[in-house]
Amino acid sequence: MGAHTTEKKVENEKKYMIPAIVSAGEILNFLSKRKNKNAKLTQISKSLGINQSTCYRILRTLTEMKLLDHDLETKTFRLGPYLIVLGSRASEFLDYMSIAKDYLKTAAKITKSTCAIVQRVDNEWFCLDKEEFNSPITVTIKIGQRFKLNSGATGKLFLAYLEEEERRQIIDEIGLFKHTEQTITEEEELEKELREIKKRGYSMSLGEHIPGVNGLSFPILDQHGEMQFGINVATLEGDLDKLKEMAEEMKALSLELSNKIYL
Amino acid sequence: MGAHTTEKKVENEKKYMIPAIVSAGEILNFLSKRKNKNAKLTQISKSLGINQSTCYRILRTLTEMKLLDHDLETKTFRLGPYLIVLGSRASEFLDYMSIAKDYLKTAAKITKSTCAIVQRVDNEWFCLDKEEFNSPITVTIKIGQRFKLNSGATGKLFLAYLEEEERRQIIDEIGLFKHTEQTITEEEELEKELREIKKRGYSMSLGEHIPGVNGLSFPILDQHGEMQFGINVATLEGDLDKLKEMAEEMKALSLELSNKIYL
Repeated sequence: MGAHTTEKKVENEKKYMIPAIVSAGEILNFLSKRKNKNAKLTQISKSLGINQSTCYRILRTLTEMKLLDHDLETKTFRLGPYLIVLGSRASEFLDYMSIAKDYLKTAAKITKSTCAIVQRVDNEWFCLDKEEFNSPITVTIKIGQRFKLNSGATGKLFLAYLEEEERRQIIDEIGLFKHTEQTITEEEELEKELREIKKRGYSMSLGEHIPGVNGLSFPILDQHGEMQFGINVATLEGDLDKLKEMAEEMKALSLELSNKIYL
Repeated sequence: MGAHTTEKKVENEKKYMIPAIVSAGEILNFLSKRKNKNAKLTQISKSLGINQSTCYRILRTLTEMKLLDHDLETKTFRLGPYLIVLGSRASEFLDYMSIAKDYLKTAAKITKSTCAIVQRVDNEWFCLDKEEFNSPITVTIKIGQRFKLNSGATGKLFLAYLEEEERRQIIDEIGLFKHTEQTITEEEELEKELREIKKRGYSMSLGEHIPGVNGLSFPILDQHGEMQFGINVATLEGDLDKLKEMAEEMKALSLELSNKIYL
């Protein structure tokens, strides 16, 4: 019964979505990837499965608003200049960004590793901002890069904090891609791990996403206990005891950050 | 006949636009203004004349894509975190931005004033980036700020480089608002001034937008002679001869920039 209600809720959410705007968002996302940064109509429409005449109208509309830039010589589209304005305003208006940024610096010192602010969009998570630890050899993460929700510590963390039915739906859609030998691809085993993560309050990946790279991820929860964003630690540290020690310190820091922003 | 064709072209452009995406763009623009940075559904729908249930669906869709951020406590919407990602990618991918930035620095030295990259969206122009001259008293311009197309030197410049029918349509829509005693509000006088501007290759405003502030504006033209963006100089300099001298130097610089980017 509970499950049925949630399923309905998810469907309800989708019912409200306006398809043209969803497609416009997918186009912006597509063009934000380096390999697609200058793309033609046919390439965009094929890759995203949007029919060509609709795709053309969306591209024209976004170009008119300067959210896209159209190069008449090469007939390619790319991200437009007005996004620069919106982006700088967004980072100015989202007060949690600057609060979190200060905590990221502390986090990088605690973990001697790259720490990032991560968020979820749909079935993916992405890195919004990061702070690197100044060391000769370090592992880093690209700002704006998007990963499927079964990728690494952060993927597992977002899945753990979702309601069961929404999580099942997402897993059905994305499948459980085997990134490395360590990736959990058995659904039952994953469910067990996710319950464990929620109980413990953080997630850990030992090379489950990229071989040799270990991850820790911590939820930033609002007053309703909903995960608004997370802090991801990407590290080369391999000693399990040290990782657990790091995790306890980071958990306390993340709790402090949650309280600072949402209480 | 020519006029008729252009009128048709403008209408044709509008026919291709997808209304839901146009409204989504207007919402992003509305929320990018400081005074509206946290706004409720009713405020947004009233201010933009979008009916409430459509507005609600657009807000939900944009929120789902993290292009907006919804505060459940205060029931307000604001620009969302994914815009930060898109903005930083756009400034990375738009190679003309970094080329123009170098020229802005030179321009600020030449004019001893604030120089800005300006672009047009619809009936408005906005400042995309700027370089200030280091002096104790200076006039500046806000990044992202939007102004009607009859504002100052830049407004006149964009109007001058539009085709006549499109210009007429815009003037019909925005009217000729009297910003100061100096603003040209007679359509015939304005047309004469605009022909002069196009012939001369730059525009000048002597306190026509803000009292005491003089402006110079220069077009950056692509290989088809279309104005892609402009360079605006906002200055306290009041000596007409000095302004004209400045203008000639800036005109040469802008031509060099146009060639560098578009040839």
